[in-house]
Amino acid sequence: MQPALKGATPSPTASDEGRSAVRRRLLGYGLLVALPLLTAALLLLLVPDGGRRAVDAGLTSDNHAAAALLLAMAVVVGGARLAGLLAVRLGQPQVVGEIVMGVALGPTLLARIAPTGFAWLFPPGVIGGINTLAQLGLVLFMFGTGREAVRSSGDRVGRDGALIALTSLIVPFTAGIAVGLSLAGRFAGAAADSVTFALFVGCALSITAFPVLARVLTDLRMTGGRTGRLSLFAAALGDGVCWILLTVVLLLAQGDGMATLWRSVLLSLVAAGFILWPVRLVLARVLRSDAGLSTSLTLTIAVVGTAASSGLTALLGIHQLIGAFLFGLAWPVDPPHESRLGPSLDTMAHLLLPFFFLGFGLSVDLGDLPFTAGSLGVMGLLLVTAVLTKVCGVALAARFSGMDRKESATMGLLMNARGLTELVVLGIGHDSGLIDGRMFAILTVVALLTTLMTGPAVRRLGAAAEPAR
Amino acid sequence: MQPALKGATPSPTASDEGRSAVRRRLLGYGLLVALPLLTAALLLLLVPDGGRRAVDAGLTSDNHAAAALLLAMAVVVGGARLAGLLAVRLGQPQVVGEIVMGVALGPTLLARIAPTGFAWLFPPGVIGGINTLAQLGLVLFMFGTGREAVRSSGDRVGRDGALIALTSLIVPFTAGIAVGLSLAGRFAGAAADSVTFALFVGCALSITAFPVLARVLTDLRMTGGRTGRLSLFAAALGDGVCWILLTVVLLLAQGDGMATLWRSVLLSLVAAGFILWPVRLVLARVLRSDAGLSTSLTLTIAVVGTAASSGLTALLGIHQLIGAFLFGLAWPVDPPHESRLGPSLDTMAHLLLPFFFLGFGLSVDLGDLPFTAGSLGVMGLLLVTAVLTKVCGVALAARFSGMDRKESATMGLLMNARGLTELVVLGIGHDSGLIDGRMFAILTVVALLTTLMTGPAVRRLGAAAEPAR
Repeated sequence: MQPALKGATPSPTASDEGRSAVRRRLLGYGLLVALPLLTAALLLLLVPDGGRRAVDAGLTSDNHAAAALLLAMAVVVGGARLAGLLAVRLGQPQVVGEIVMGVALGPTLLARIAPTGFAWLFPPGVIGGINTLAQLGLVLFMFGTGREAVRSSGDRVGRDGALIALTSLIVPFTAGIAVGLSLAGRFAGAAADSVTFALFVGCALSITAFPVLARVLTDLRMTGGRTGRLSLFAAALGDGVCWILLTVVLLLAQGDGMATLWRSVLLSLVAAGFILWPVRLVLARVLRSDAGLSTSLTLTIAVVGTAASSGLTALLGIHQLIGAFLFGLAWPVDPPHESRLGPSLDTMAHLLLPFFFLGFGLSVDLGDLPFTAGSLGVMGLLLVTAVLTKVCGVALAARFSGMDRKESATMGLLMNARGLTELVVLGIGHDSGLIDGRMFAILTVVALLTTLMTGPAVRRLGAAAEPAR
Repeated sequence: MQPALKGATPSPTASDEGRSAVRRRLLGYGLLVALPLLTAALLLLLVPDGGRRAVDAGLTSDNHAAAALLLAMAVVVGGARLAGLLAVRLGQPQVVGEIVMGVALGPTLLARIAPTGFAWLFPPGVIGGINTLAQLGLVLFMFGTGREAVRSSGDRVGRDGALIALTSLIVPFTAGIAVGLSLAGRFAGAAADSVTFALFVGCALSITAFPVLARVLTDLRMTGGRTGRLSLFAAALGDGVCWILLTVVLLLAQGDGMATLWRSVLLSLVAAGFILWPVRLVLARVLRSDAGLSTSLTLTIAVVGTAASSGLTALLGIHQLIGAFLFGLAWPVDPPHESRLGPSLDTMAHLLLPFFFLGFGLSVDLGDLPFTAGSLGVMGLLLVTAVLTKVCGVALAARFSGMDRKESATMGLLMNARGLTELVVLGIGHDSGLIDGRMFAILTVVALLTTLMTGPAVRRLGAAAEPAR
C-alpha cells in the first residue's frame, strides 16, 4: 500500500499521523478566518440591528469603538497571516501576501465590493488606533533593519560589495531622475517642484528591500553563499545611502529657505552623531556581556531607545523612521545577546506590520489608476526603467568583480526586489506631498511587480542549486 | 582583603567582574532615563522655540504628532520600567512601581508640577494612541489571566480551595454591599442607583489580583508550597466569579428594562458557551501536538482569537475584557506548546501594560481627593472593611481546612492583594458611570494600599521560610 502523503513513511500509523498533522494545520488556518467571521455572523443573527445601529451611530459609544478596534485587529492580523501563507504556497515571500491583503482591505477592493462592511469594520475612530500600531510596528521594523545592516557589513565582502552597492544605487537613481524630470509636470505633488519630484522618483527606483531580500535568500537557501552575502551587504549599504538621499529630498521639499535647510542638515548631523557615537558607546558598554542585563531589561532599552531616537529625529523635522534606523545601527552586534532579543522584537514587529500594510492600503486606491494609454505607458516606462537599471547595473558590476554570468544575473535579479521598504518610502513621499495620488498608485504597482518577479526569476535561473557555505 | 560586593568571591578578578556587572546594570538603568531626557534637552537647546511651537500648534502637523507619540512611548515604557525596578529594590512587586508611575505621570503629579511639560508630552492626539496600546495590552493580559486560571485549577486542591475561594469572595462582597448601600447617596455615579452602586463596591472589595499574587508568591519562593497553590487556585476561582458578578452589575446598570437585560444575559451565555465549547474543542484539536503548528502561527491564532472574542463580547454589550478572559479559559493547557507561546505574549503584554497604567493615571486625580474628615473616614472605612473581611474570612476558612495558624494568616494576607485587576475593575466602573470621581480616587488608594501591604506583611510573618515543594 502506497502512503497517500508525500514524505510520510510507509507505516500506516505514521501516515495517519502525517494526515492528522495536515488536518490540524488546515484547522489552524481555518480558525484564523472562522473566528472573526463566526463572531460577525453570530452577531448579525442574534442582534439583527446591531451592525447597522453601530454604523449609523458612527461607533461613538465606548463599547462600540472598542469592539470595532478589536475586530479590526483580528481581521487585519488574521487576514495578513492567511494571505502570507497563501503567498508562500504560490512560491512568493510571505510579506508579498501580507502587502496584497493590506491593499485589498482598503478602497481598492473591500470598500468597492462591500462599502457597508468596510465602514463597519474601519470607522473613523479606528483608523487612529491602526496608525498608532502601524507606527510602532514600523519603528521596530526599521530598528531591525538597522541591526541587520550592521550585521551584514560585518561580513568581509568589502571592495566588491561597495562597488555593487554604488552601482545598484547610482544607475537607477540617475535614470529615475531623468524619467522623473520628464514626468514632473503631470505627476508632481503639491509640495514638490520638478527637481524634488525627480529626486524622489530617483530614490524610489533605487531602493532595494532589505528584509524581502533576506527572506528570498532564506527561501532559496542562499544566505550562506557569496552571492547572497554580497547582495545583502550591497542592499544594506545602498539602503543607508538611500535614506540619506530621502532625508535631503524631504528637507529640500519643505522649502523654508536655505537658512532653515542648513540648520536642518546641521541638526540631522548632530542627531546622527549623537546616536552613532555616545549612545552607541554606552549601549556597547551596557550590553557587552551576556551576564550584564536581563532579557526583559534589554528589550525595554531597545524599545525605549528606538522610540526616543525616532521621536528625536521627528522633532528635528527628519522622518521618524530614520531615527529608528540610526538606533539600529548603534545597537551592538553581539550574537549571544542578539539571540535573546531577536525573537520577541521580531515577533512584535511581525504582528504589527499588517497594520502598516492596512494603513498603506487605506491610503492608496489602485482602482483609481487611470487605465489610459498614457498612464499605462508611464507605468510601463517606470517598470522597465526600474528593472533594467537595477538588474543590468548590478549584474555588470558583479561581472566586473569576477563573478560568472549566472551569479551576476542572479545578483541583479535579487536586488530588484523593492517590497516593503519601497512602500514605506512611497508612503512618506505621498504624505509629504512629493508625488500625487496617481504617481503613488503607479509606483506602488511597480514596487509590487518588481518584488513579485524576484523569487520566480531567481528560481528559474537555477540559482537555488548554489551550495550554501 | 574583603571584597566590597555581597556574593562576590574573594578573588580580585571576580570582584572586579562583579563590580563591572553592577556598573553595567546601573548604566542600563541610566539609559532608560538618559535617552528620552537627552533627546528632550538636545531639542530644547538646539531648537529653543521647538517645544513651545509644538504645544502652541496643538501638534497638528503629522511630524509633530508622530514625534509626540514616540516620545510619549519612550517616557511611558522607560518610566514604568524604572519605577518597577525601584519598587523591587524596596521589596515590592514590580507592578506596584509601574502603577505608581502611571498615576504620577497623570494629573495627580506631572500635570500639577509641570503643566507645560505634561501638555507637550501628552497632547490630545496622543491620548487616542495610548488608549489603543493600553487596550491591546489589557486584552493580552486578560488572555494570560484566563490561561493561568485554568492552569491553577489543574492543581488538585479541590474542596479546600473551593471553600477558601467562596469565603474570600462572599465575606468581602457582602460587607462591600452593606458599606456601599450606606455610601450610595454620596458617591454613586450618574448611571448607578443605590443597588448597582452597592453591588459594584462589593465586587471591588472582593477582587484578588491574580497576577500580583503570583508575582508575590514567586518573590517569596512560595509557588510550590500548599499555601501558595491554594491561594492561587482560590484567587483564580474567585476572579472568575467576580467577573460574572461584574457583568451582571454592568448589565443591570445599563437599565434598558428587563427584556433587554434578559436578552443580554442570554447573549452572554451564548457567547460564553460558544467560546468555551466549540472554540475550545477546535483549539484543543489544533494545538494538541507539539509538531502541529509553528510558534508564529500559534501566536497569531492567540492574538486573533483574543481580539475576536473581545470584540464579540464588546459588541454584545458585555465588557471586552471578559471575552479575552474567556478565550484564555478556552486555550488548552499544554506545557510544551505553552512554553513557546508564553514568553512572546507575556513580553508584549508587559511592554504594553504601562500604557494602561498611564491611561488609568490620566483618568484619576488623587490630588482631588477631598481631605476632609468625612472623606478620609470613608476611605478608612473601606480600607478596614476590605482588609479585615478578606484577611479574616480567608484565614478562618483556611483554619477550618486544617491549616495551622501561621499558614492561615499568610493565606489571608496573600489574598488581600488587589493590584492591577482592581484597577481594571475600577476603570470599568468609572467609565460606566457606576461610581463618581471621588469614589474612584478613594477606591484606587484602597487598591494601592492593600497591594503595598501584602509583601511586607507576609515577609514579617516569616512565611518566606516555608519550604517549597
